[in-house]
This record gives sequence, structure tokens and C-alpha cells, in this order.
Amino acid sequence: MRDVQSELDVRNIPIDRVGISGISYPITVLDKEKGTQETVAIVAMAVALPHEYRGTHMSRFVEALEEFRGRVTPHELEGLTDNLIERLEAIKAEVTFRFPYFIRKNAPVSKLESWSSYDVMFKAEKTRSKFELETEVIAAIQTLCPCSKEISDYGAHNQRAYVRLAVKMKDFIWIEELVSIIEDCASAPTFTLLKREDEKYVTEHAYNNPRFVEDVVREIVLRLETDKRISQFRVTVSSSESIHNHDAFAEVERAYE
Amino acid sequence: MRDVQSELDVRNIPIDRVGISGISYPITVLDKEKGTQETVAIVAMAVALPHEYRGTHMSRFVEALEEFRGRVTPHELEGLTDNLIERLEAIKAEVTFRFPYFIRKNAPVSKLESWSSYDVMFKAEKTRSKFELETEVIAAIQTLCPCSKEISDYGAHNQRAYVRLAVKMKDFIWIEELVSIIEDCASAPTFTLLKREDEKYVTEHAYNNPRFVEDVVREIVLRLETDKRISQFRVTVSSSESIHNHDAFAEVERAYE
Amino acid sequence: MRDVQSELDVRNIPIDRVGISGISYPITVLDKEKGTQETVAIVAMAVALPHEYRGTHMSRFVEALEEFRGRVTPHELEGLTDNLIERLEAIKAEVTFRFPYFIRKNAPVSKLESWSSYDVMFKAEKTRSKFELETEVIAAIQTLCPCSKEISDYGAHNQRAYVRLAVKMKDFIWIEELVSIIEDCASAPTFTLLKREDEKYVTEHAYNNPRFVEDVVREIVLRLETDKRISQFRVTVSSSESIHNHDAFAEVERAYE
Amino acid sequence: MRDVQSELDVRNIPIDRVGISGISYPITVLDKEKGTQETVAIVAMAVALPHEYRGTHMSRFVEALEEFRGRVTPHELEGLTDNLIERLEAIKAEVTFRFPYFIRKNAPVSKLESWSSYDVMFKAEKTRSKFELETEVIAAIQTLCPCSKEISDYGAHNQRAYVRLAVKMKDFIWIEELVSIIEDCASAPTFTLLKREDEKYVTEHAYNNPRFVEDVVREIVLRLETDKRISQFRVTVSSSESIHNHDAFAEVERAYE
Repeated sequence: MRDVQSELDVRNIPIDRVGISGISYPITVLDKEKGTQETVAIVAMAVALPHEYRGTHMSRFVEALEEFRGRVTPHELEGLTDNLIERLEAIKAEVTFRFPYFIRKNAPVSKLESWSSYDVMFKAEKTRSKFELETEVIAAIQTLCPCSKEISDYGAHNQRAYVRLAVKMKDFIWIEELVSIIEDCASAPTFTLLKREDEKYVTEHAYNNPRFVEDVVREIVLRLETDKRISQFRVTVSSSESIHNHDAFAEVERAYE
Repeated sequence: MRDVQSELDVRNIPIDRVGISGISYPITVLDKEKGTQETVAIVAMAVALPHEYRGTHMSRFVEALEEFRGRVTPHELEGLTDNLIERLEAIKAEVTFRFPYFIRKNAPVSKLESWSSYDVMFKAEKTRSKFELETEVIAAIQTLCPCSKEISDYGAHNQRAYVRLAVKMKDFIWIEELVSIIEDCASAPTFTLLKREDEKYVTEHAYNNPRFVEDVVREIVLRLETDKRISQFRVTVSSSESIHNHDAFAEVERAYE
Repeated sequence: MRDVQSELDVRNIPIDRVGISGISYPITVLDKEKGTQETVAIVAMAVALPHEYRGTHMSRFVEALEEFRGRVTPHELEGLTDNLIERLEAIKAEVTFRFPYFIRKNAPVSKLESWSSYDVMFKAEKTRSKFELETEVIAAIQTLCPCSKEISDYGAHNQRAYVRLAVKMKDFIWIEELVSIIEDCASAPTFTLLKREDEKYVTEHAYNNPRFVEDVVREIVLRLETDKRISQFRVTVSSSESIHNHDAFAEVERAYE
Repeated sequence: MRDVQSELDVRNIPIDRVGISGISYPITVLDKEKGTQETVAIVAMAVALPHEYRGTHMSRFVEALEEFRGRVTPHELEGLTDNLIERLEAIKAEVTFRFPYFIRKNAPVSKLESWSSYDVMFKAEKTRSKFELETEVIAAIQTLCPCSKEISDYGAHNQRAYVRLAVKMKDFIWIEELVSIIEDCASAPTFTLLKREDEKYVTEHAYNNPRFVEDVVREIVLRLETDKRISQFRVTVSSSESIHNHDAFAEVERAYE
């Protein structure tokens, strides 16, 4: 059968990224407490295509994913990008895994345990000379408005907010560490299971720690900028304002060399 | 050209709904203040297909939509379903328009004006003998937790919540009336534009009106059950809990004959 | 601390469903080949609330979910609804688990293996006297248009389509069986991994099996209506038409008793 | 009332973007045929915040949006960013409007008219010295696989694909021009209304113009790279493969000087 993809292309246009996306696949990720954790990822995989080839071979991405057998660790991700570079004769490969990640959390007073869910993304990029890994964590927190607290005789509007923290690492950082940084900077973390004594604690804790989105983003930056393991980061805090039908957000990006 | 759709089908299976969905179309809807309002709808249209036909003629739905020219009123919607019944030789037709609807709202103290957006759906269903119109409004409100207020020394968790109210009408009810019912039953409405004096007012107002999702749904039902124009309703209140990463919800359905 | 939820409510309005939704939780489901499968669910849980109570106790839903420990089988789901009825003194409980489910599938010619993903939902409903379980499977298939094939000198438009099949069962049916019914009725199933020889086979197979959405829905109904294990079903086929920016759909509902 | 936002911040962290997002607002955009077009936008607005201020004044964004009165033209967008810079004493402002845009399109043979919908985004960025406008258009097209056509005895798999084209302009380019470029490079455009003779034409046209995502992206780049009005672009073609439950994609980015 003719191999149309391998034919010579004369348009002289290299393609930055060509591949497949939206593949749902079972994976295993590293878990600080349990060693590993089973979850489900949405996967994208791409290579750079030199100008002279008409197309890439899409089925080889899935073959590489099958060989990889879902072991999502920094080491294995580099192996997967190497495999793609070799298999597809490419100069660059990128793979992205997005998945829910679960951490057991204790309620603050009753100490009852339940699962908290975080949306995590690993993005690995390999060129012939360099491997880069980006980790992104999205965590739900509570923000309580300092202005509303200050100007009101009682109460203060508060709401669920989402923090998206993406870091490029020089050394390994656990998802659990990124989650801790985020939750420490909130008016309060969110919890899945809270009894009445916990709800009292969380309500008062948030009232005692009012935070604008600007405050949350800055507190997170303070913790990141002193961490030698991080070469680059982007933090976005987006608050589902309870007094509005729109969101307030703040974002800081930094790259060190 | 052969008309495959019109061929005899021998599988003896009538189809309840066949048609097209996900069509984005500009429309004009009735506006209580301004007369009419221009907006954009996602449209679905379907007919019941008797067992003897292999298929319907999908292009005729779009032709009916074009003739209709986007005038979304109860009268025109009945005309559209009649058109479909005739054009497609059907015994039943259903059309659904989902669209954002805008109302000018004043901030509670400063009285500054801005647009509030609501998600509205009209669903019209016609059989040979009967026309039924369902209107659904989704509005964002604020809920403040009565339990959190009661047990905490200060503060109370609150959050954005969404009310979905669907009614079947015997007599015409304005979108604006449904929105008013919803907002009157909230701890506080949401606003697009609030100055500091407004934020103080809304914060204190919500603190003075604590409401569980159970309270909001019941307050709305109280207002609906005495309205003679309504033959059927369903109310769902879903609160994006600020202390959790999941929602609390309450739902009541009623049908009168 | 005062228990606000347990206070007497005088509005005289029972609530049909009150509970929590949007909880992301790790679960284990039955797998026809491997025994069990680890995956991740979005969970909703609700009870009916009698008119005399002001509110339900939201934290008890999570406690029940924790005790349940994620074993999603028909037997365990009935236990979970029983637990909710007892724990919340309710007359009715409903729980819903939505999750991706994975099946190993072989390419049709090369026989290469990969994971196919399906969106599955279990909905369990218990009243004091009756337990009902609904299973819903969403599968991606290919549809090839019989009209386009018939009227064109060459080619035929085809596209990805999604089948949503929901059944209420009297006897247990495997997810794998529902998937087989759906895929047998398509112009062709979709595959994650296809080599060139497989792509030739699938292309020709689809061309030899042209199917309107009306055909697919009827072929599925033919298989369901003779299955004694099924008491009720709803099938929706929605095709992402490649010649349009909207979808074509067909739907059949049946209830036997 | 105390102005908490204006207080001195000592954390020494400037914020790259702070503002509001997810605001649904009615707008008017320029239309090549009709002069203007009414539609509905999702709006985001942000400014850069110097390190010494604790917070921005979120309500002033909405006041600027109200004064702007929804006239989304390049000239007015620059006015809006200037207004934000002045009103919020910022050194940089960014505004984003995402909206459906409608173009009347004729079926290829019957010439019947209907609306085609495109997702458009304008992003305007102003610093004290420079104004930049990015326009993004997302259009649905049909792709027919050259490999499938070549290796199969009959038929070829095809599907709906989405092209996302973002350009930074030195001179004004109409949305209609960007749509034309995209549709010219497809196996076939999509249409809302097609009669049988049109469906025959489109089916055969696509079969005669097989295109990988790699081909579509390159054909678009060929047209963009010779257009002097464009200083920067990014093109992504993502194809909802009919033989897979995942997508194939290709992307090219370019920036000149």
C-alpha cells in the first residue's frame, strides 16, 4: 500500500506540532503517600514535522502510548518523548497528560478523612538536547473579600476560587507540595467532608484571613520565588465572586534562567 | 436523484424525535422594557417519524428556520412547529432555543446601571391537537449558609448559586417575572456593577437573609404554586459551596392538571 | 451547637431531591474481562426531604460515600442507597456515578490492541419498597450517509457520531454487552489504534454499511426489544455531520412492564 | 469607607494581569456586508498592577465597559484600553471579547442562503507606547483523508474539523477574509443548508480534495505568509477523526521581525 504520509512535500513549510489529542487512557502516577495511584488521563502527543514530509504517522503515537503502559513518572515521560523522536524521526516531541489526582485530607477539627480532587497536568517536551517538564495543578480554595469585611458591619462575601499553578522544575517537586503551597495561601482550603465543628472552624478561619485574588497570587509567588527547584512558573487565581455573575482574577508569570 | 429518506422502512419502529441540534443562529426575542432584544441562540428542531419512513429530510428544518427569520415569540414558535409538521408530514414537532438574555439592573445603593445576563430556553411542542410552551431561566444568585452563620462567632460562608426554573404556562409570563421570583428568594441577587456602598449593602443583606438551597427552592415554590398561569414547574437550586469543591442542590417538581 | 437543619419547617413543601453533586472520587467497577477496573467518577447523591424538616445533613452523604469505599456494583449501590435512607431518615435515595470505562479492543486486521474509552453512568434509586438501576453508555461510532453515497458519483460523507444508550434492567447486563450492541449497529466502530491495513478495512466497511442516524437508532432498538432483561430504554444517536456545523440526531424511548 | 485596595503593599510583587472575566455582554461588531452586526460576547478585562498597590478596583472595569457601550471595532477597542489605563492608573491593559459571528452563505448548487456561525475573539493590548490587536477565528470545515482514499478500493473517511486561526495585524483584515482563507484550504467548507444537489456536490468536492490536517495547515500558511498586513499568526487544525474517538491536529506559529 502506498505510504502517502512519507511522500515529499514541496510547500517548504515545517509544522511546529502534529499529532493526536483527546485520547482518554488509564494511567498510574506517583503518589507521595501510597507510592502510586491509578487514575484516568486525557492525553495529547505531538512531534515537529520537517518541511519535506507530507505527513506524520498518527498510529505510531498510540503504539508508543501502548508501550509506555501508562506509567506517568518524570523518567518514563522522558522515555516516551525519546520513543516518539526515534519512532517518528522527529527533532522534537511533546506529550501532555491531564488527570484528576486524589489526596486524602483530614477535616480541621473532627479529623475525619475524605478524598480531595485536584486537576493535574504534566507536559513533557524533548528536543535532541534538552528535556523539560512542566507540572500544573488546579486546586479549589475559598477566598474572603478584605474590602467587603472592612466596609460591612457584619459578614463578608466569600466564594470558591480556583488556583492554577504551573511550574517548570529543575528538581522533582511532588504534586502534594504544590497543593500545600496553594492551600496555605487561601482564606481557607476547601474540604470534601466537614462536620459542624469543622464548618465553624473553616468559617471563622476564612473570616480571619481575608484575601483578594491579588493577595492569594502574591502569597503564592512569595513561596515560589525562594524555591531553587523551580525555573519558571505561572500562577492564576480566579474567584467565582458570590456577589457577581463573573469572576475576578490575578496572574503572575516568572522565568529565571 | 433517488430520495433514500422517503423509502419504505420495514423495521416497524417509529422514532420519537429526529432532527438537528447545535445550530447557532441570530434571533430576536420579546423584551418587557425595550419591545425586542437581539441575541444568539443554540437551536434544536425535531419531529416524530412514523415507522414506515426510512428517514426525515434534515434540510427542511433549516428551511423552516430561515422562513421563521428568528422571531422567537410564543405565537411565532407555534407557527414554526406547525410549519415543521406540514413540511415534514409529521404528527409532532419540537423546537428548542437556548440563548443569553440581558436585563438592565441597578446597583442597590449607587443605582448605577449595567447588564445582567440570564440563560433562557424556550421549548415548544406541537401535536396535531395541542401546543405546549416551556420556558426555562437560569439565574446566578448568592446563598449564605444559615448553619454556618448560627454556629460561627463571626462570618458565614456564602457563594454563587445557580437557580434553574422551568415552567409550562397556560398564560404568558415574562422572563423578567421569572427572574424577579428567583432573585427575591435568594440571600442576595448577583450584580455586574457594584460600587463600595453597594458591596456593603449586598454583604449585609445576604448576612441578614441566610438561605440553604432547601430554603431557596421552597421560597420559589411558594411563589409559583399560587400563580394560576403556571401548569407545571421544576426548580433546581445548585450552590457552588465555598467550603467544598462540590455543590449542594435541591429540586422540586410539580404538575397541575 | 444548634442543629439548624433539623428545625421544623412550616412552609409545607416536601423537596423531591436534596443532596450533593459534582464530587470527584476514585472508584472500582466490575470488568467482564479483568474482574474489576479502577477509574474516577463524578458522583451525585440525593434524598427526598419531607416537608417538616428545614434541611438535610450534607456531610452524611460524604460519610456514606466514604464507608462505601468506591465499590460500584449493583449490590453495593443498593447498599449505598439503603445507607442514605437510614442515615438521613429519608423515604427515597438516588445516587449517580459517571465515569470513563475502558475496554481493550483489537484492530480489525492487524489485531493490534489498545484501550477504547466509553462514558458510563450508573443511576440507582431506592424507595422503601423498590430498587431500580439505570445504566447509560455513551460510545463514539462512525456513520456514513446513505443519501450521500447514493447520489454521489464517488465518496460519501461520514463522521463521528455518539450513541447514548440508557437501560433499566431486570437482570444484570455488562457494559461490554451494551457497547457491542451499539458498535454492531454503526457504519463502523471507532478504534484508538489502526494501522494502514486496518484503515483500509474500516473505510470500506463503513462504505458498505451506510447508516442514517435513523438507521442506527432502529437497529439498536431491534436488538433491545427482544432482550428480556431490559424493562425500559432510551437510545439517542447524535452525528457530528461532516458537511454541516451542526448535528443530526434520532431518539427512541420505550418502557415495558 | 476605607479603600483597602489602595493600601500600600509591601510584598514587592507586581501582578501581570488583574481584572474580571466571564462577563456576558451584548455587543455590536463590524460586518463587511451589513455594516454592523448585533451579537453577544464573553468579555475579560485586565490591567498590570504595580507592586506598591494591594489591589485593583474591579468595578471600574465594568464602568469602562458600560461607557464603551459594546461597539467592538479596532478604534473603539483602543479607546477602551486607554480608558482602563487612565481610570486604573495602569501601565498596561488587555481586553478580550469572544463572540459568535454570523455570515450569510449560499449553498454551492441550489444557492439557497442560510447563516454560518464562527467563533471569533478580539484581543486588544495597550501599553503606554503600543497598541496590538489579535483576531482569532474558529471555523468548522470538512477534511477527507488522503491516505484512506489512496489505500481503499472505495470511499474515504472524512469528518468535521475545526481551524483556529489567530493573527496579529498591522492593517485591518475582515473576519470574512480570514474565514475565506480557512474555507479555501479545506477538503470542503461546512454549510448550514444543503439540498440534495448540494450534498452531491460537497461529497464529490471533498473526495476530489483530500487533505490531511498537515495539508490544511500548510495551505493556510501559504496564504498567510504572503499577506503584508499580518505580523504574526498561529494556525491550529484539529480533526474529529471519524475512525477514532480522538482528534488529529497540526499547528504552525510564525512571527515576523
